[in-house]
Amino acid sequence: MSFFVQFLGTGSALPKENAHPSSQYIFCQNRHFLIDCGEGTQIQLRKYGIKIQKIDAIFISHLHGDHYFGLVGLLSSMHLLGRNKKINIYGPPPLDQIIRSQIEVGGARLDFQIDFHPIDDLFEGLIFEDKVLEVKTFRLKHKIPTHGFIIQEKAKPRHLISDKFKDSGLSIAFIVPFKNSQDVVDETGVIWKYLDFTTASKKSGSYAYCSDTAYSESIIDHIQNVDVLYHEATFTNHYVSRAKTTKHSTAEQAAQIAQLAKAGTLFIGHLSARYDDPKQHILEAQAFFQNVKYAEEGQIFRIC
Amino acid sequence: MSFFVQFLGTGSALPKENAHPSSQYIFCQNRHFLIDCGEGTQIQLRKYGIKIQKIDAIFISHLHGDHYFGLVGLLSSMHLLGRNKKINIYGPPPLDQIIRSQIEVGGARLDFQIDFHPIDDLFEGLIFEDKVLEVKTFRLKHKIPTHGFIIQEKAKPRHLISDKFKDSGLSIAFIVPFKNSQDVVDETGVIWKYLDFTTASKKSGSYAYCSDTAYSESIIDHIQNVDVLYHEATFTNHYVSRAKTTKHSTAEQAAQIAQLAKAGTLFIGHLSARYDDPKQHILEAQAFFQNVKYAEEGQIFRIC
Repeated sequence: MSFFVQFLGTGSALPKENAHPSSQYIFCQNRHFLIDCGEGTQIQLRKYGIKIQKIDAIFISHLHGDHYFGLVGLLSSMHLLGRNKKINIYGPPPLDQIIRSQIEVGGARLDFQIDFHPIDDLFEGLIFEDKVLEVKTFRLKHKIPTHGFIIQEKAKPRHLISDKFKDSGLSIAFIVPFKNSQDVVDETGVIWKYLDFTTASKKSGSYAYCSDTAYSESIIDHIQNVDVLYHEATFTNHYVSRAKTTKHSTAEQAAQIAQLAKAGTLFIGHLSARYDDPKQHILEAQAFFQNVKYAEEGQIFRIC
Repeated sequence: MSFFVQFLGTGSALPKENAHPSSQYIFCQNRHFLIDCGEGTQIQLRKYGIKIQKIDAIFISHLHGDHYFGLVGLLSSMHLLGRNKKINIYGPPPLDQIIRSQIEVGGARLDFQIDFHPIDDLFEGLIFEDKVLEVKTFRLKHKIPTHGFIIQEKAKPRHLISDKFKDSGLSIAFIVPFKNSQDVVDETGVIWKYLDFTTASKKSGSYAYCSDTAYSESIIDHIQNVDVLYHEATFTNHYVSRAKTTKHSTAEQAAQIAQLAKAGTLFIGHLSARYDDPKQHILEAQAFFQNVKYAEEGQIFRIC
């Protein structure tokens, strides 16, 4: 599995024993990301055997406590466990000072660098990119500035037909261009076609995270055709007006977004603590989008 | 049970699934206190069925995250659950701003009042008093300013011998002075002795909390004859030098303090995450103090 999500906490603002506040671990081609880091995330990471020192970057959607109160504790534990590798944190601008003041007041000095990347309230676009993936952010519709994230794998290299390439006697310098869909002209002027030596690349996957948000069609452009969409579904239809006033979504609204965005799979979570199970949410969502699942704590789901 | 402690978290700085960071719930004659509030305390409170809205006061020993990172989350949940009753928080002065800035940045407005009572770095003495108990604080010896707490029940009223009092035909106005060990002179000049109408009052209990601290005999005066002492025991003797440099205690040192203070029962906790069980700690402590127990998560212990 080269790209998966593991749900660490999919509860809402009032955590329960089996409904921890928001946090998700994303593994993508040896990149290790966290999205949101609610209270107790470090304990959840330990529970599920995820090595905290491998985490390269943490993305915080907004400054409601159930989405970031576990962050400074996690950073402190990284320090205590001997981390010296830099970490990148992406989130609302005031988060930088919150982190630094709590570390300072505790008399601690972290042995690793925090690169804080502020996401301004109105910003939408690329926030991270390397050779295999990119992360973009977009605005959600909540009580305070809140951002969603989409992680997209870049086009993968085509697959070399090794035997055929060997038999051709061509220089290994041809491999990289072939894998990157480029024909190569040799010194005699002959054109070697990548299509003759490679097969199609593996599909690239994408994952989008939308929590917390009211129903907002402006999200759709940003997550069009996403393979896996996590969208909050705090309420059932019975509380649709409460969803509106608190700027959260119903399961039906999450499903509508998934349908309009032509998502592959929809995961719902962030259910209000008033619900004991997600049955009704799933039922209501399925009226609009068949492939809906509940984001159960601990569950690993393969994206690609 | 009118006075007990329940251990919510007795782990050290690196929490594990069954070793949550520090927090203890104290019930004393219908007063509900928390001492320390590490990350995840609100989930532990729910797990053990403790009603969070009943908590009257929270005492924070120091500003290392494993002792307070659960505080703002707990306050937020109190708000979401409709609290309007004031809460008292006692702790290091910078804590006030930490709480307020995190609430403010989340766009929240709490519907209840927080009365923050700063405990200055060098302060020792009374911080809370009502008609049935008092709470005093004293300095521990740690890397940053850290305070211990002792909760002491005041002398309880004597027990009225109801039948005898009834037969005497005396006015009910005599009851309160009798219970408070006062003789009463009636209008004819006769002296009525409280000893004739009451039996001895029930014992008053006391509980002391000392975490985190290096071995420090200056604690002893403050906790003399305490019924139940919780004292951190991060290390076994094997790591005595590490205890010294990190300003923590060994189990043996905790036992020495208990012995010198003539404590009734010693609970040890805050064991380093390197230990899987407290057996060696208990063994080493028992060489100095027989009545030692491990403060297991969830355990309730009657103080009086």
